[in-house]
Amino acid sequence: MSKNYELPLDKSNETWFEEKLRGFYGMRYRIKESLFSKKSDFQTVDVIETYGHGKMLFNDGLAMVSERDEFIYHDMIAHVPLFVHPNPKRVLVIGGGDGGTAREVLRHQNVEECVMVEIDNVVVDACKKHIQKTACVFNHPKLTLIIADAVKWVSDNQEQKFDVILVDSTDPIGPAQPLFSKEFYGELSQLLTENGIVVSQGESPFYEVAAQRSLLNILKSQFSFATFYNFHNLTYPGGLWSFSFASKGLHPINDFNEARVSESELSFGYYNIETHRAAFAMPEFMKKNLEGLLTK
Amino acid sequence: MSKNYELPLDKSNETWFEEKLRGFYGMRYRIKESLFSKKSDFQTVDVIETYGHGKMLFNDGLAMVSERDEFIYHDMIAHVPLFVHPNPKRVLVIGGGDGGTAREVLRHQNVEECVMVEIDNVVVDACKKHIQKTACVFNHPKLTLIIADAVKWVSDNQEQKFDVILVDSTDPIGPAQPLFSKEFYGELSQLLTENGIVVSQGESPFYEVAAQRSLLNILKSQFSFATFYNFHNLTYPGGLWSFSFASKGLHPINDFNEARVSESELSFGYYNIETHRAAFAMPEFMKKNLEGLLTK
Repeated sequence: MSKNYELPLDKSNETWFEEKLRGFYGMRYRIKESLFSKKSDFQTVDVIETYGHGKMLFNDGLAMVSERDEFIYHDMIAHVPLFVHPNPKRVLVIGGGDGGTAREVLRHQNVEECVMVEIDNVVVDACKKHIQKTACVFNHPKLTLIIADAVKWVSDNQEQKFDVILVDSTDPIGPAQPLFSKEFYGELSQLLTENGIVVSQGESPFYEVAAQRSLLNILKSQFSFATFYNFHNLTYPGGLWSFSFASKGLHPINDFNEARVSESELSFGYYNIETHRAAFAMPEFMKKNLEGLLTK
Repeated sequence: MSKNYELPLDKSNETWFEEKLRGFYGMRYRIKESLFSKKSDFQTVDVIETYGHGKMLFNDGLAMVSERDEFIYHDMIAHVPLFVHPNPKRVLVIGGGDGGTAREVLRHQNVEECVMVEIDNVVVDACKKHIQKTACVFNHPKLTLIIADAVKWVSDNQEQKFDVILVDSTDPIGPAQPLFSKEFYGELSQLLTENGIVVSQGESPFYEVAAQRSLLNILKSQFSFATFYNFHNLTYPGGLWSFSFASKGLHPINDFNEARVSESELSFGYYNIETHRAAFAMPEFMKKNLEGLLTK
């Protein structure tokens, strides 16, 4: 979890930023310019301009966002539930301090308000200053940004109602740890309307099987339907990554009304009707890893 | 393309093997033991036992196979065409010197012969000695292994007929370059039976758009149907990777008879009916990158 600025390697005076996975795998990005580095109350926040992936945000040395491929993560966290829910009006984003998730939510004309609860204003400020591609949303009139601990905020706001909740968190280590608990999802489910959907950052099906099983267990205890769907990320270890999808009844395929996509005037970088459906196709190894926890 | 053994870094005496992508991105594997390293007539071949991914094969410093996830590549190169073709009896594998592709082909009981034409016996020998997980196939009675330049072999064997051809090659640099040509695919198409299918290693949709366009152009000039399908690979840059699928008429979805999968007694690590279908769902950015070349 430590910050891994590499010192110049080899003969050249190139500098690289390295993200390590459990001491056995490293992903290295060649640095064009180091734009921001600050230790907040919660984590170390870095913004680095890289040669191959545009500007990148790292929290505690882990890649959160790259300008080159952020569209995939943000397309898939937002549009999958927003096209399954028949008429989402109020959306809650937990985390997502770079702004990309709220940006995609607010492209849906039927959404009347997006409330975003982010714990770390240093992330928001760093992105406002350096990553306008995602932080452009912070001027949106339908966005309500609240800097607060989401666990406390959700507990204090149990009277509020949302159609869709997106948990755009870091890994279950560091500041996001309490977000991966049964208590938190119990209180979240109180905020959801009858047709409500909650989608959460769901970790790597290769490297984080225990975390996936734990999250799915929690979701199954609080919701009538829960599963994972997959997407690709250039800068997350292994490339294949998951979101969890849980609901009070809506099914991500059976209740998916394709016409809402084809009739919308939105264009996407990754999302379309086929990738929506394909994302829920689970490879055999993943089915086996999640055995006993998957809804038939 | 140079071999990148890292010298010990930091305070520890760990050693790492690094694969570089165009000088801006690096993927590093912590080495448990370096098992094999030899410069053949065609490339430098390394087998390394890593901490996180089992034994790995590198050709000219590029990861070819890791024991941890080779099942995905080999499931998807073999089972997709072999379940689309109604009755594949003879299969040709070009390259694939580790053995994994032929191993999956020969799990299909209806296949009577798998001919494998690999240019580099050093790859075969290294895998026989160190990567039995894939090289176990080299004892199979239905396998005919030919060490030869595939371009010449295909040209010299135009009277042979195959139902399915799998081009399991390295990138279009180094020894595999002639495999990415119109002339080669023209001669390959002569080897295919009427219902024939050719599937080829199809590069990264993120990083190798020009190579994908070039390959699709070549395939369209020689076959009545050509497209890409996608899979995940832990150890290829970006994680998302493609195979091309070209045929004399068979369609990978419309002519896919699901019953053949459910009635087969095979079990898989990645492949199933859903992942077969999902693999052909093309993200929007990929459709745009391949604009003008995709069959409707």
